[in-house]
Amino acid sequence: MLNFEFYNPTKIIFGAETVARLADLVPAKARVLILYGGSSAKKNGTLDEVKAALGTRVLQEFGGIEPNPGYETLMPAIEQVRREKIDFLLAVGGGSVIDGTKLVAAAVKFDGDPWEILLKHGKNVNEAIPFGTVLTLPATGSEMNSGAVITRKEMQAKLAFLSPRVFPQFSILDPTKTSTLPPRQIANGVADAFVHVVEQYLTYPAQGLVQDRFAEGLLQTLIEVGPKALSMVEDYDTRANLMWVAALALNGLIGAGVPQDWATHMIGHELTALYGIDHARTLAIVLPSLLKVQRGHKRAKLLQYAERVWQIKQGDADQRIDEAIRCTGQFFEDLGIKTRLSDYELGRDAIEKIVAQLEAHGMTALGEHRNISLDISRTILEGAL
Amino acid sequence: MLNFEFYNPTKIIFGAETVARLADLVPAKARVLILYGGSSAKKNGTLDEVKAALGTRVLQEFGGIEPNPGYETLMPAIEQVRREKIDFLLAVGGGSVIDGTKLVAAAVKFDGDPWEILLKHGKNVNEAIPFGTVLTLPATGSEMNSGAVITRKEMQAKLAFLSPRVFPQFSILDPTKTSTLPPRQIANGVADAFVHVVEQYLTYPAQGLVQDRFAEGLLQTLIEVGPKALSMVEDYDTRANLMWVAALALNGLIGAGVPQDWATHMIGHELTALYGIDHARTLAIVLPSLLKVQRGHKRAKLLQYAERVWQIKQGDADQRIDEAIRCTGQFFEDLGIKTRLSDYELGRDAIEKIVAQLEAHGMTALGEHRNISLDISRTILEGAL
Repeated sequence: MLNFEFYNPTKIIFGAETVARLADLVPAKARVLILYGGSSAKKNGTLDEVKAALGTRVLQEFGGIEPNPGYETLMPAIEQVRREKIDFLLAVGGGSVIDGTKLVAAAVKFDGDPWEILLKHGKNVNEAIPFGTVLTLPATGSEMNSGAVITRKEMQAKLAFLSPRVFPQFSILDPTKTSTLPPRQIANGVADAFVHVVEQYLTYPAQGLVQDRFAEGLLQTLIEVGPKALSMVEDYDTRANLMWVAALALNGLIGAGVPQDWATHMIGHELTALYGIDHARTLAIVLPSLLKVQRGHKRAKLLQYAERVWQIKQGDADQRIDEAIRCTGQFFEDLGIKTRLSDYELGRDAIEKIVAQLEAHGMTALGEHRNISLDISRTILEGAL
Repeated sequence: MLNFEFYNPTKIIFGAETVARLADLVPAKARVLILYGGSSAKKNGTLDEVKAALGTRVLQEFGGIEPNPGYETLMPAIEQVRREKIDFLLAVGGGSVIDGTKLVAAAVKFDGDPWEILLKHGKNVNEAIPFGTVLTLPATGSEMNSGAVITRKEMQAKLAFLSPRVFPQFSILDPTKTSTLPPRQIANGVADAFVHVVEQYLTYPAQGLVQDRFAEGLLQTLIEVGPKALSMVEDYDTRANLMWVAALALNGLIGAGVPQDWATHMIGHELTALYGIDHARTLAIVLPSLLKVQRGHKRAKLLQYAERVWQIKQGDADQRIDEAIRCTGQFFEDLGIKTRLSDYELGRDAIEKIVAQLEAHGMTALGEHRNISLDISRTILEGAL
């Protein structure tokens, strides 16, 4: 096992009818800015419920945070917080709203151009104003971690930052709040969580026995509840399991003490930045091809994955690996997520653009062995045509 | 899934050569009291290493905290902290030292008789002085939770308290620090962690799919590394996995959102208080018999346990349950832990004394269904004769 640090102080409030807990969780004298996305938080009543729970506190709103939250979109929120002397932020939404809120929380206290936070990946964040979240879309795990990914459209850049200052103080996870989500967002959430686990699991053996068991348990649970979540929108326990798995998939636990990959994410980010493909869908395009190209380096863990996650016990080692990779792609397809670039009307010319962007962003040595060069990224993308 | 709250702010520093991190983790101006147990921390050099890492800080020591830490033992430490204006505690040892340190941390700030903290199970703890831990014995999980169990010999009482104020600020888990432990303590640690998981897992189905998978993963890992830890004392990864599993077994995660039992612990505590049997050994005595007596109430989970943890797939349902319970007892025996009261020279007269103590401590309705009456506790103990 590798040496590690694990720290996660976010308080999770999980279950039905828990939004009312905001009354205790947010400081009584706080001046609160509620950040949210599109109109769904308004339409489905969550925003009203949040406001009712916050009672007589000074409340302001900042809506319109889009999927792949935009740097330009968020700048006015920083202004608003400073101008209105806001001292507590409340994100109501999914990973994009929470990621955006993290940037606002850090930028308000940051002396200089907030873009520097992203260029330095958060190492320069020394302070942030406190915030909590009310999660409405299980997917990214942002509700229980200290990372955020922000897109700056004018630069076609999608960059991440991490800082222990931007853990949510609390996150309310009420599975009933996900019952109005469209199937496309549920499917994306399942795929996103699945690939988060794979990035921390399918590398090389490092004697992280319990990390492996936990990762396998999360994958098995996603395989069990993912398809159900699409077809049984009113099933509370299915939604509850999906919500908790998505949080645990990226809260630091399963990645502590083991190698991590993240090449699928880095390549996927460029696909979103260039072509606007949903984040989860970019992962579903890249991952199966990446596993094929990297199968030699990942051989031992692919065999373990085949046996423990997919119960594949027939055939020789290479056949079992083939079948595990096939099952992975099929899992995404069964969720209604297409896994080929051509399904998104992209061809070889797109691959050159993606590789150029990877180069521009310094992504020239990806993966757990740092051996995915630009050429190998190209091969991975060609395998996904 | 049941509604739950999960909060665990302890920072874990895990790995070889991490004791030196104390230099950063303890405030530079702190006046530190180092609490420890017997002479082993001195003899094996850990105490010297800790002091070297703490450099020029004001340091005092409080040694002699025994297994099943004694209330009477700890009272002078509270005095010492107040008298010497200590503002940071550092526990160096196993669960007993850490539990004792938690009581000291809370009692120093408590207005009144510290025994009240135990009588109210911690609900009256509003403040505590900060502390960290250097773990030398993986077993109880106290290094990553907010609970403690304290014994008051004059009353033959062993009581627990819980408070979010007594989470360690940090815990250093260096597996190399466990290499001088005697096999008896390693075996006890494995059994203790195993039963911690079982208490939160072997109840009734509650659609906590990921909690079940995590619990099963911890049990499988203990089954894999437990016997190895006894025979291969120098194997770093074995010790590392045991150390991390023991922490995760009782840090709140696997019990969040699912029913919990804890009857084995409550009955076992009386056995320790009356007869001084090692905590883990009392659990190994009680658990197999409890599973037999409660098999009807635990039927669905026993079948799941048989299949997923022990890979028992042959025979009808009752045979599979029998075999799973037999494997559980055999696991303890293989660790060198005897599982019958008679192995400890206790007979029917002891059972009446234990039942009387359960009654005296209000333990008249134990288990996840609160249906283990004194009579059923007696039946469980009779089954363990």
